[in-house]
Order: sequence, then structure tokens, then C-alpha cells
Amino acid sequence: MSEPSKNTSPANDVSAGTLKDRFIYGGIGLLAIFLVLWAGIALIIPSLVYILWVATNELSEIFSRRNINLNKPFLLTSGIITLLLSIPDLHSLHPAIPWREIGLGLVVLIAFAIALSDQLDVGDVAFNLMAFLYVPWMLGYFILLRYSPDGHLGIITLSLPLLATFSTDVGAYFVGKSFGRHKLAPSISPNKTIEGSIGGLLTAFLSLMIYTWFIQGVFPFGRWELMVFSLLISVAAQLGDLTESMIKRYCGVKDSGTFLPGHGGILDRLDSLIFSIPLTYYLLVIFT
Amino acid sequence: MSEPSKNTSPANDVSAGTLKDRFIYGGIGLLAIFLVLWAGIALIIPSLVYILWVATNELSEIFSRRNINLNKPFLLTSGIITLLLSIPDLHSLHPAIPWREIGLGLVVLIAFAIALSDQLDVGDVAFNLMAFLYVPWMLGYFILLRYSPDGHLGIITLSLPLLATFSTDVGAYFVGKSFGRHKLAPSISPNKTIEGSIGGLLTAFLSLMIYTWFIQGVFPFGRWELMVFSLLISVAAQLGDLTESMIKRYCGVKDSGTFLPGHGGILDRLDSLIFSIPLTYYLLVIFT
Repeated sequence: MSEPSKNTSPANDVSAGTLKDRFIYGGIGLLAIFLVLWAGIALIIPSLVYILWVATNELSEIFSRRNINLNKPFLLTSGIITLLLSIPDLHSLHPAIPWREIGLGLVVLIAFAIALSDQLDVGDVAFNLMAFLYVPWMLGYFILLRYSPDGHLGIITLSLPLLATFSTDVGAYFVGKSFGRHKLAPSISPNKTIEGSIGGLLTAFLSLMIYTWFIQGVFPFGRWELMVFSLLISVAAQLGDLTESMIKRYCGVKDSGTFLPGHGGILDRLDSLIFSIPLTYYLLVIFT
Repeated sequence: MSEPSKNTSPANDVSAGTLKDRFIYGGIGLLAIFLVLWAGIALIIPSLVYILWVATNELSEIFSRRNINLNKPFLLTSGIITLLLSIPDLHSLHPAIPWREIGLGLVVLIAFAIALSDQLDVGDVAFNLMAFLYVPWMLGYFILLRYSPDGHLGIITLSLPLLATFSTDVGAYFVGKSFGRHKLAPSISPNKTIEGSIGGLLTAFLSLMIYTWFIQGVFPFGRWELMVFSLLISVAAQLGDLTESMIKRYCGVKDSGTFLPGHGGILDRLDSLIFSIPLTYYLLVIFT
């Protein structure tokens, strides 16, 4: 989601209309996200199912440019089941049952069974399993983190990677624009710089330090842990951003879709969170 | 692992030498398996690491025939970590931490990070993730099942899919040889028949009914559950067998390797268990 790659692309310029669009739709998007997250599971599940649907269509369209067939019915069905298996009540009622793991095991078996019925070949299975791990498997962590450690504190836990990811993007954009000299990954995302990347790390670090200063006591981590975590989450966010660029580059596509005017596709918006939210969840369950 | 495909292949004949080899090495193999399973974790982990090593080499060799590069250091490292994360003590000491799931999440992030450093392309990531899910992820369930519900009863739990898988193979072979008329999957495994497949199902069903009659009370399932489970495990075993054939066929290979004389490669021996053992584990944790 870091910005240089989008704002400085073909014409190497930002048109005023696009920037205005970005603010308006970005603002609406943010409001909608806060509403959904605050309301809890009753709005989160349908929203994630909708996101899954749009993201699966985008990913399928992207891979089709390289003649790779994603099986949308398979991905949507297994994806919705994975989202349902991520519902926290299931885990608190039956803590000994690894629901999501069972779901994944069955997804692997079923993917190969579909291939045996001649509808996919082994290569298609590989790409469909990767797409499954990349989108629905990761989206499930949005639910799990929202309810870790519980439904009240979860909204604060979830705010951690949201803020870290957002400030990584903003910091990378402005630092990269002002001081960027050395290319980070020229073949994948030509406008990103090492300076921007470090700027993103530091901005995420500072934002989290300030944010958690206001809510200390509420937050389940100590100061030192939080410092390390903020850097790790920022790295994951940047890795997520680059990964999505790499997938698009592999398939010869620029934007993942046209979900929000001025913001590219939904995958362009989610790319950093797809890695930073699961990592936050892992850190949370291991260190608390 | 069902036999017609191997014994009646090119020459459509079984040489006496091969059959003798099969019995001798099969016998030694069975003894070794019982010893390892009885001894527990101290022998199971190194055995599985060795199996992982051989299987990764075989799979890598198979895919290389189609110019697909599996990254062996990545698969072995992530595989060994997955096996260690499947150690039951870890799960009983920290029941709230989904160790294997965290391992998988990091494997996905690291696979993409390796790709970003230009050592893999996105297609390689897809095949490496599939290989990861197919071998080490599934091998981990051998450990988990051996210790479900505990270290004593686990050896009986584990005997269930071993017996079901073995009797599926034997039943499918003899029934297929005697009554086989209708091809099951001619393009993947031309010697398998629908009659053989049904014979495998019924043999697995009967063996488990007889076996569990002797050990009833010890076993954690009721009679009715067990009947359904024996059929499901037999289906998973046959699906595993066909899947391995499909992968070899996709890459234009006949045997996965030369691990045991007369038995093909280690993947040819493991193929059915790779699906039947995880399924048994899932049934066990859900229904007990």
C-alpha cells in the first residue's frame, strides 16, 4: 500500500482529481472500517465475505493474464468456510479443536480431488492453494485478532497493525519522496526506495509509541516488546505490499482492479494488512 | 499404494524376484515401523526427518522433469520446523497457541520474501507451498496422531489408519485383479478399477470391524462412528494414492524413486498415509 508506486507511475505525476478521489473515498472507507470493526462479528463476517468475493475476482483476473486458472467456486467456498472456522466462539467453546487447521487439511484434499476429476491440473492446484493461503486464510486472522484477547480489548489489539500499517505507508511515501535515492526493489516496484522503507519503519515505530502511551495499561504488551513488534509489523506490511506488486508484475498487471476510484483494486488496499494482521496475531498469542 | 498399477505395468507381469523383494523389504519396513512407533517421540522425530529428506529429494526430482524448481533448503528447513511444532508436549503445555498454524503463516511470508529476493518466481512459490502442504505439513500429523489422546492410547489410534490403509491396498489389489472390469481413472492410473476401489473400501471396513472387536473399550470411538470412519479413511487412502500418481503423471515419471527395492520410492509407500493419517486425526479431535 505504500504510495510512491501508484502516485508517481506512468506520468510520474499526481493529478488533483485523483488525489481528491483518494481523500474522499479513503475517508469513506476508513469510516466504514471503524463502524464494521466496532460493531463486531455480525458486520465483520459479511464484510469479509464481500471482500473475499471482490479479492478472489481480482486475483483470478490477474492470474488469467498469465493463463493461470483460479477456480473461483473452490476459492469462494473454501474461503467462506475458513472465515466461519475463524469465528472466536468456535475456538473458545472447543479450544482443543484446531478448526482452521482441519479446514486447511480438507481444502488440500479437496483441491487434489477436484484435480483428479479432471477439472484442474497439478499446476492449477498449486496456484489455487497459494491463492487460498494468500487471501481467505489470511483474512480469517482479521476476525481472530478482533477477538484477541476478547471482544472488548480486541478492537484495541486490531488497531495496532492498522495504525502500524497506515503509518508505514504514509512514512514511506513522504520520506521516500523527500530523501529517496536508492531503489529498494527496482524490478518489482520501481518507485520504492530504501530511504522510504526505513522512513516507513520509523514512522510506524513512532506512531505506535505515541499511540500506546495514551492507552497504556489497556494494551497487552510491555514497552520493549512493543518496540520490537512495531518494527516487525512494519516489515510485514512492507513485505505484503511488495508481494502484491510482485504477483501483479508476474502477471503483467498494474492495478489489481478498480474497487475504489483513485485507490486501485481491493488487493492494492489490503496487501500490507494481509501480512501484518496475521503476524500481529501470532505475536499476540505467543507473547501474552 | 494400491498394487495393480505397479505390478501389472509395462510388461503386465510380476517377476518372481520383484515379488520376493517386495516381501523381504516390506517385512523389514513393517518391523522398523512398529519399533519406531512403539519407541515414541525419540525415534519418531529423527525417522520423520529422514523421511522428509528422502521425500523432498524425490518430489524435487519429480518436479524437475517439468522444469519446476522446488527449493530444497526452504522445504527441509520449514519441514523440520513443522515437525518440531507438531510435538505434542508443545500443544499440551500451551494449548492456546496454534503452533503449526503460526509455522505455516511464517512459511507463507518467508516463501514470498525469498521470491522477492529474486531466488524464486511467483510460480515457484505456488509449487513450493503445495509441496510444503503435501509432505511436511501432512507428516506432522503422524506425530500428533501417535500422541492422541495420549502416549499410551496413541499407538492404538495410529494403528487405525495404518490398518485401514494397508487393507485398502490389499483389498483393492486382489478384488481388482479378480473382478476388475471398469477403469477408475484411466488417464492417471490405468490399472485401477472401480471394482478394486470398492473392494478396498470393504476390506478396510471389515478389517477395522474385526480389529476393533478385539480392542473394544480401549478405542475412543463407538461402533457406528467407526463404521463411517473406516470408509472415510479408506477413501482418503485411495485419494492419496491417486494424487501421487497424478503428480507423477503430470511430470512424466513412473516411480517416485528407488527407496526400497521392489517398492518404488518413499512417496509411493507414503502416498495413501499422507491423506489417511491427517483425516483420522481430524476425525479424532472432532468426535472425541
